[in-house]
Amino acid sequence: MNKIPVLEIFGPTIQGEGMVIGRKTMFVRTAGCDYKCAWCDSAFTWDGSAKHEIKQMTAEDIWEQLYALGSDRFDHVTISGGNPALLASLASFISLCKEKNIQVALETQGSKWQDWFDEIDDLTISPKPPSSRMETNFSILDEIVAKLQANHTNFSLKVVVFDDKDLEYAQKVYARYSNAPFFLQVGNDDTTNGNNDELVTKLLTKYEWLIDQVMESNEWTNVRVLPQLHAYVWGNKRGV
Amino acid sequence: MNKIPVLEIFGPTIQGEGMVIGRKTMFVRTAGCDYKCAWCDSAFTWDGSAKHEIKQMTAEDIWEQLYALGSDRFDHVTISGGNPALLASLASFISLCKEKNIQVALETQGSKWQDWFDEIDDLTISPKPPSSRMETNFSILDEIVAKLQANHTNFSLKVVVFDDKDLEYAQKVYARYSNAPFFLQVGNDDTTNGNNDELVTKLLTKYEWLIDQVMESNEWTNVRVLPQLHAYVWGNKRGV
Ligand code: SF4
Ligand code: SF4
Repeated sequence: MNKIPVLEIFGPTIQGEGMVIGRKTMFVRTAGCDYKCAWCDSAFTWDGSAKHEIKQMTAEDIWEQLYALGSDRFDHVTISGGNPALLASLASFISLCKEKNIQVALETQGSKWQDWFDEIDDLTISPKPPSSRMETNFSILDEIVAKLQANHTNFSLKVVVFDDKDLEYAQKVYARYSNAPFFLQVGNDDTTNGNNDELVTKLLTKYEWLIDQVMESNEWTNVRVLPQLHAYVWGNKRGV
Repeated sequence: MNKIPVLEIFGPTIQGEGMVIGRKTMFVRTAGCDYKCAWCDSAFTWDGSAKHEIKQMTAEDIWEQLYALGSDRFDHVTISGGNPALLASLASFISLCKEKNIQVALETQGSKWQDWFDEIDDLTISPKPPSSRMETNFSILDEIVAKLQANHTNFSLKVVVFDDKDLEYAQKVYARYSNAPFFLQVGNDDTTNGNNDELVTKLLTKYEWLIDQVMESNEWTNVRVLPQLHAYVWGNKRGV
């Protein structure tokens, strides 16, 4: 089956986090995940609640919708999920983007390899910390990182941190793959708060906490500590 | 004269803006600028108000002070100003950092070339828009960008935007150097506000405005739109 299960297509907007934070981009959100993170901010991609919204699309279908929204105002597409790495069928869409001179970013937790990883311009591997209640399979992750490094794929590691235990986990990942660009990201544990001012104040307090931990420690040096900018600007709103 | 005029040394903290936003780093702020931007947030580096605080330091002096503050907790130093590109003498400090396996970032407005530009790991050229009341010498800037590109130096362009005219200027710079990584940054026109919540709300409104302009326009595609994170976290405080 060559169709791609898609839940959202939106943009142009900015990428709010990670290695190309701030980048003007379009978003394509695929359905389905092999994880069930406790704090998943896109649980609707896998918990059945948006089942009826999933569209089975070809690469061309997706492109048409992107173009209808973004016309000539974009040159970058971000694929997120769920876990888009479950979908071998994304190969066709990624090729189509390349043909059209569109750069592609993608984020996955690193539980599964796809050969098209090497075609991604900005690949984020984001293993999940203990607060997610998921368990990282480090032998798979080792393999993925080794392949990406061997192939000189432009990738980074990113760990979302909610608490001390998560930061300890992040430290292990950082030490294990010490040659890979590494990003720490503040977790948003208040994904239903509709009061943006309150949310921003909370998130900034958490961000400062995370910065403090990292600045004090000699276990962290080559690291970038970032928030989710979209939460500052748009709060918990979906599709912006 | 081989001494370097230094006004501030602090850290470890995060780089709050630009191409390595979020990076754990130390800061060295040099004195002196050939510009007088209307909204300069470090006017004390050139307006005489901190004249008595300037220390004439050797590369080793600076290193000692960095080490006293950061010990083994850093591997990256950011040199800012003022305009550090006025100082040929920085060559010795940059070499010393290389010897010690410390990466170096630097920001300058692009009014003057230094041969040590090519030694910088993360070089930001930040030409000043009309609201600064400065005038860009584009023939000098052309030469600088051409040399950096010929030498494969890792650099980016960054323009701070306060208003529509600034954004128009930024567009010209973006179009002129279309192969260079390009960052737009929201200007902070409230650098004396001591009320952080108020400041954050203002800055986020401005940030959203800038995002909107860029998203709507087909003149912008390969661009990153960023705020100054340090202003969100620490407000207008100096030395954090
Ligand atoms: S891996 Fe991502 S999409 Fe899947 S459950 Fe975790 S946070 Fe949600
Ligand atoms: S170039 Fe930079 S340091 Fe110099 S006056 Fe302008 S903003 Fe201030």
